[in-house]
Amino acid sequence: MKYTKLTLVTLLLTSMMFGQNTTQDAEMLRQIYDQALTNGKAYQWLDDLSNDIGGRLSGSLEAERAVLYTKEVMESIGLDSVWLQPVMVPKWTRGIPEYSYIETAPGITNLVNICALGGSVATPHGGLKAEVVEVSGIEALAALGREKIKGKIVFYNRPMQANLIHTFEAYGGCVDQRYSGAKEAAKYGAVGVVVRSMNLRLDDLPHTGAMSYDDLPVSERIPACAISTNDANYLSTAIKLMPKLNFYFNQTCRVFPDVKSYNVIGEIKGSEFPNQYMVVGGHLDSWDLGDGSHDDGAGCVQSIEVLRLLKNLDFKPRHSIRVVMFMNEENGLRGGNKYAEEAQLKNENHVFALESDSGGFTPRGFSIDADATNLAQIRSWNDLFKPYLIHYFEPGGGGADIGPLKKDGMVLAGLRPDSQRYFDHHHAANDTFDAVNKRELELGAATMTSLIYLMDTYGTTSEMSHIKN
Amino acid sequence: MKYTKLTLVTLLLTSMMFGQNTTQDAEMLRQIYDQALTNGKAYQWLDDLSNDIGGRLSGSLEAERAVLYTKEVMESIGLDSVWLQPVMVPKWTRGIPEYSYIETAPGITNLVNICALGGSVATPHGGLKAEVVEVSGIEALAALGREKIKGKIVFYNRPMQANLIHTFEAYGGCVDQRYSGAKEAAKYGAVGVVVRSMNLRLDDLPHTGAMSYDDLPVSERIPACAISTNDANYLSTAIKLMPKLNFYFNQTCRVFPDVKSYNVIGEIKGSEFPNQYMVVGGHLDSWDLGDGSHDDGAGCVQSIEVLRLLKNLDFKPRHSIRVVMFMNEENGLRGGNKYAEEAQLKNENHVFALESDSGGFTPRGFSIDADATNLAQIRSWNDLFKPYLIHYFEPGGGGADIGPLKKDGMVLAGLRPDSQRYFDHHHAANDTFDAVNKRELELGAATMTSLIYLMDTYGTTSEMSHIKN
Repeated sequence: MKYTKLTLVTLLLTSMMFGQNTTQDAEMLRQIYDQALTNGKAYQWLDDLSNDIGGRLSGSLEAERAVLYTKEVMESIGLDSVWLQPVMVPKWTRGIPEYSYIETAPGITNLVNICALGGSVATPHGGLKAEVVEVSGIEALAALGREKIKGKIVFYNRPMQANLIHTFEAYGGCVDQRYSGAKEAAKYGAVGVVVRSMNLRLDDLPHTGAMSYDDLPVSERIPACAISTNDANYLSTAIKLMPKLNFYFNQTCRVFPDVKSYNVIGEIKGSEFPNQYMVVGGHLDSWDLGDGSHDDGAGCVQSIEVLRLLKNLDFKPRHSIRVVMFMNEENGLRGGNKYAEEAQLKNENHVFALESDSGGFTPRGFSIDADATNLAQIRSWNDLFKPYLIHYFEPGGGGADIGPLKKDGMVLAGLRPDSQRYFDHHHAANDTFDAVNKRELELGAATMTSLIYLMDTYGTTSEMSHIKN
Repeated sequence: MKYTKLTLVTLLLTSMMFGQNTTQDAEMLRQIYDQALTNGKAYQWLDDLSNDIGGRLSGSLEAERAVLYTKEVMESIGLDSVWLQPVMVPKWTRGIPEYSYIETAPGITNLVNICALGGSVATPHGGLKAEVVEVSGIEALAALGREKIKGKIVFYNRPMQANLIHTFEAYGGCVDQRYSGAKEAAKYGAVGVVVRSMNLRLDDLPHTGAMSYDDLPVSERIPACAISTNDANYLSTAIKLMPKLNFYFNQTCRVFPDVKSYNVIGEIKGSEFPNQYMVVGGHLDSWDLGDGSHDDGAGCVQSIEVLRLLKNLDFKPRHSIRVVMFMNEENGLRGGNKYAEEAQLKNENHVFALESDSGGFTPRGFSIDADATNLAQIRSWNDLFKPYLIHYFEPGGGGADIGPLKKDGMVLAGLRPDSQRYFDHHHAANDTFDAVNKRELELGAATMTSLIYLMDTYGTTSEMSHIKN
């Protein structure tokens, strides 16, 4: 699209009157936070999503209910349009509750807490029992060699690094064990895999999450489960005392053919640049053990709340603002990919995307994927955010679902809440509504709304450079 | 004391070599945080204090056990000296569980959750039943006048303001109802007081806390209780429907004569300025409904952890560093006052004091009570703290217990953790160990240790001005 002269003048005046705008912006942010904290809807929506619907794994009945529910919510807040975007998603089911024990001597069994990893095959009927070989990671397999691994269960036990302040870094340093551990161990003849849960805390809850066999032939795929951190420590100690002990586990997970699902999309049409899109979203699917309140029910309801707050404050955005509930982030990213594909097919010009998928904890700021000029512009708003204790504006990824939208000049951002407790709940049975604090959730929604407001008001700097052409 | 020329040269060199020191300081902070997060002791100590001892109201057996326990812990970490500082404290007991109902019609009673306020007198034997008059605060009493209040129970129902980001401000805007509500209502002939709990959340837990009759004659003192936020809303709605309803409550609290208790003090003697003291502390007493994990078990164990970390890292402080477990912050401040009195009597030169009494949540920074030069010095360390997401260095009070130490040129600081969830737990039955996250507690301890390290290394600027004299 081309900018009119009037637009150009407006933009120039806007930047000339920066002092004045700062006061207006400060007032707008105050209203956004006030509304979110005193009259917010996100917490009630999360209650519905978590307690009335529950865990929403792709392809499940709950996921379909969540699609209909969030569509209804979007319709209820008076957006200009709301629609479903079809997308085929994988369907994996956990089956009956997993069962596992450590056999320290024939007949002497000690129950431990496990869960199947998402995407894992089942164990043979009746379960799988084998000796265990403990490793600190995939890179340790080669040194052991096929001889010491063949016929055994590989136990990946590298813990998350406690001294990293950003817990997502600690996660990043471990998750290869979960995601690729089975595929790699199978190459050495292992018959199964058990992975220490990605949890910084010592407790009894196993944490699931996606794993992949990649192009490993179906006949060579081995079952994989996660074990709680307490039981991982127990298993490790037991192995040291009794290197020949057996580990048993039984799981009945299945993969079904892909099923049709949807991204849920709502839009407020832009008053000035209706064909430039700013997106805010989270993923609607979740793992099945808890109810997915932090991952990512929180991001979903916060994203809808952004548009509700803007409407509630009678703000008319210049750009078209879309909220997207992405389907299937957890085990396929089909929704995120689909949204980006269609955007490209339809030649939709996305200038900014914001994702919330790091939990509903107290917001600290944003990680920002942008060029230096856009980053500098966002950082220039630091003082506007200071009263709300928002201080983090650092380069980094925006998020998995908006990643496929990325193109030159576009700005991606991810909400960064306090991350210290996130992995206590992540993908586990305790990712539940009671673990989300109302105010913290609302502060996140207000922080996201504020960034959308500022991005809409000032545009991306690529829009400015567009003018020069 | 006088500074030697050598000291002066050292100090000047220190400031000249600021670049080099920054690297050394950054390395020291890295070690402090690493140790706290991977090898910390605070969480285990808090477990002991909370789960083995429990709520520690001044004058209780639990408070005495906590004195002995923390003394033992201090002795176990090899401080240069550990001692008890005697102090007389008030002894108030709650008595049998409180009981309360709303009587909407004769014989139709609806139970509600209350607790006696700390310091309240008992109800008459068998309880107290009277009509209720709801007010939004003490200032509303005068408008109503004696006629409408006499013989009634005054119900203070002004909620905490949800749109304040700093929840302690919201607390400050309400707590007069709890602290002085009974005294003021009694002047108008009220027979009892019920106060909306100081809680930003809607739930069923009543929150206790200190109240005072000041110089009101004993015969005129009326009983006061707190009611949960849910039940406050219920009572308020019921009154609107049935203005003549009765409120009943029964509580058997008692005041006993003062008893002897102690501040617990440990010290590492300073290598260079042994007669200049830097203090770090929290209060050992707590309310009796929960186990006082956030208020202020967390601050206690963090403070001891500061000295353990310094010793563990083989850091020899230039100043004498003291850790103090203050007794009786909650209902008397006798410990804080006693410590300051003795410091003055003994002419001990306290140059810096740090308090942690805002919960064991993720630390955000410090509120600082200092002159402009000292504040600027602390703010110059901002970049050192940035990797740990510590960003808040704002003027404000240090804390109740260290307040009495304040004198010109001295620096006071209070740890400022995330405050969003603090009042969900404050003074209520759910201020318990499970509500404290290990990493968040440890990050707080590391942040406090880092500030003590930097203050010890660079001194206060009043030490510098001292040189000029």
